[in-house]
Amino acid sequence: MCQACHGMDGISKAPDAPNIAGQTEPYLIAQLQAFKSGARKSESMTVVASTLSDKQIEDLAAYYSAIEIKVGKIPGE
Amino acid sequence: MCQACHGMDGISKAPDAPNIAGQTEPYLIAQLQAFKSGARKSESMTVVASTLSDKQIEDLAAYYSAIEIKVGKIPGE
Repeated sequence: MCQACHGMDGISKAPDAPNIAGQTEPYLIAQLQAFKSGARKSESMTVVASTLSDKQIEDLAAYYSAIEIKVGKIPGE
Repeated sequence: MCQACHGMDGISKAPDAPNIAGQTEPYLIAQLQAFKSGARKSESMTVVASTLSDKQIEDLAAYYSAIEIKVGKIPGE
């Protein structure tokens, strides 16, 4: 379900969707829970997160946070 | 102001702060505007974003989105 917008590799496939590859696990869990509870609002994510169990949220956060990311060139350096 | 939590390299320095290196520019602008307007809530970001002009939001989004990121190993592949 996630991959249409966020990709299997966690790199955004839709203009308004963030990259989530290598995102911190506590942040991913907190955001999915916030979309599920309604504390954070998003047309697409409110719908998706409402279908997820706590276990599924943990598993998804574990998957996407485990993707390695490397930072390349930083502007101005 | 951003770097204490998000780093100059856009990689999180605080457990609850997301990585923002190479994040999509429209997403960064939208989230900063949402924190500024109060549509999205966060103790730290609500305070920070309230001080930012539209130009500063655009400049920050341009800076962090311009950091190159590369995806490494994907779990299970």
